Amino acid sequence: MISFVQILDFIGTFAFAISGIRMASAKRFDWFGAYVVGFATAIGGGTIRDLLLGVTPVWMTDPMYLCCTAVALLCVIVFDRRLVRMDITFFIFDTIGLALFTVVGVGKSVELGFPFWVAIIMGSLTGAAGGVIRDVLINEIPLIFRKEIYAVACVVGGLTYWLCSLVSLEPYACQIVGGSAVFVTRILAVKYRISLPILGRSDDDPPTER
Amino acid sequence: MISFVQILDFIGTFAFAISGIRMASAKRFDWFGAYVVGFATAIGGGTIRDLLLGVTPVWMTDPMYLCCTAVALLCVIVFDRRLVRMDITFFIFDTIGLALFTVVGVGKSVELGFPFWVAIIMGSLTGAAGGVIRDVLINEIPLIFRKEIYAVACVVGGLTYWLCSLVSLEPYACQIVGGSAVFVTRILAVKYRISLPILGRSDDDPPTER
Amino acid sequence: MISFVQILDFIGTFAFAISGIRMASAKRFDWFGAYVVGFATAIGGGTIRDLLLGVTPVWMTDPMYLCCTAVALLCVIVFDRRLVRMDITFFIFDTIGLALFTVVGVGKSVELGFPFWVAIIMGSLTGAAGGVIRDVLINEIPLIFRKEIYAVACVVGGLTYWLCSLVSLEPYACQIVGGSAVFVTRILAVKYRISLPILGRSDDDPPTER
Repeated sequence: MISFVQILDFIGTFAFAISGIRMASAKRFDWFGAYVVGFATAIGGGTIRDLLLGVTPVWMTDPMYLCCTAVALLCVIVFDRRLVRMDITFFIFDTIGLALFTVVGVGKSVELGFPFWVAIIMGSLTGAAGGVIRDVLINEIPLIFRKEIYAVACVVGGLTYWLCSLVSLEPYACQIVGGSAVFVTRILAVKYRISLPILGRSDDDPPTER
Repeated sequence: MISFVQILDFIGTFAFAISGIRMASAKRFDWFGAYVVGFATAIGGGTIRDLLLGVTPVWMTDPMYLCCTAVALLCVIVFDRRLVRMDITFFIFDTIGLALFTVVGVGKSVELGFPFWVAIIMGSLTGAAGGVIRDVLINEIPLIFRKEIYAVACVVGGLTYWLCSLVSLEPYACQIVGGSAVFVTRILAVKYRISLPILGRSDDDPPTER
Repeated sequence: MISFVQILDFIGTFAFAISGIRMASAKRFDWFGAYVVGFATAIGGGTIRDLLLGVTPVWMTDPMYLCCTAVALLCVIVFDRRLVRMDITFFIFDTIGLALFTVVGVGKSVELGFPFWVAIIMGSLTGAAGGVIRDVLINEIPLIFRKEIYAVACVVGGLTYWLCSLVSLEPYACQIVGGSAVFVTRILAVKYRISLPILGRSDDDPPTER
């Protein structure tokens, strides 16, 4: 039987793999390099989470993650010209992946008996760390540190999950509400161009007047 | 009760978080990105150490590391203009952090039954790996590989710790002497501009004469 | 007694350490930085493998890895002018290291009871991840994602290992045949300039005609 959490995981994996493969494509990586970057984007966050939690990384227990990334690579190879016109679709996909990974990460940490503040960090890592690994591998400054609300949406989702659990909602309900909070937070932030303040002084720039 | 080692850990965390947040600020990261870089700088070395030693990373057992980084971020946001005039203060802070983290790392590894040559590496990782992670995240070549005596001071401190333990000093005394060795080595190296030889031939440069 | 696998490991360690140290030298790192990059190149893949497999990294159980990297550093310092004329020798060395590390990684994973598809990934990580870590540390886009058949040779070797084990060859025989497959694949790929297709459209470039 395929569980609800597994289905969520696979959808998220596909969306994240596509994101990694497209970034690798922009840097003109070969197929193998693109596959590796896509795979690392998809499973990177979960792998760091599982290493920190002290359990075997989930992709080592189920070959579906590898296969899912292979399908994503095939899609990019075959449909790439058409994919570039679908940026909004991919934005939605990516946000679904973010939401799903976050609640999977929070849920797993809570199940393993970690306190909620650890679980919220683990959820955020599951959602956002794959993108950081992707950006390190393609030698760019991680996007999420400079642009938009992204990982913050994971934190909002994790806190929402925690609040739901405080009022004794079922785990499934917590995951749905928490995931929706991630999704809505990111969509609203992008729609209304909400972002966090930049750290650093504008007077870092050399003065133009004497 | 707060132990001696915990106090050392918190001072080091604060100093390292400030260092990461200031570097992120120079790259114009947003508040969240700066917080993540500060946190990764502070706990990165200890996390790698704990993963290698096979124990739960220490920051996952105590929310004080998160809080300490939040205080550091707040300080940078509020006092930043004044902080830039305090470079020497931060150099001292950073060196204290380096010394403290090194001896904490050596001590923990020895307690877990690892031999001293592993403990010295773990101490150096605890002290210096956070800075490497910080530089990878902000997409710079790690500073410690090219400039000054930094990680080498950790190695000196670790060896000193080991010598102290060979002559049967108490763990506390080993930590104080070892930490002082790190501190003094770095201060002297910077004061007298002592650095390691650069690897690579000067005749790499194209000859200017015919 | 020194086992066959240990000898393979040490030869591979030396070759990979040389590769890391020479790249660090090109970036004008100091001796310590070059040592760290060489060490990370040599043990990085095996360390990631061991963390994923949940066992203590092998270099923490045997100081020979540290010593081997020190010898490599010494060789580069003393013989560097002569080493640069030996690029083909180093290409052979590096390929031997790749082959050896791959089969060591596959063998260890199988021994620990992981399925073969995990073992093939672990073999490829052992062979190729050190080079990725090296390139991240020197702030370059990882070479293996863009150039030549490299990590793909590990996958070919891992699959060959698996086929050998399917027909019930002894582990030693599997390692020799699998390692040879890695070696031959890479040598042939470089000799005949075989590479994987690049992902990404050539019409990414702005059109030059109106």
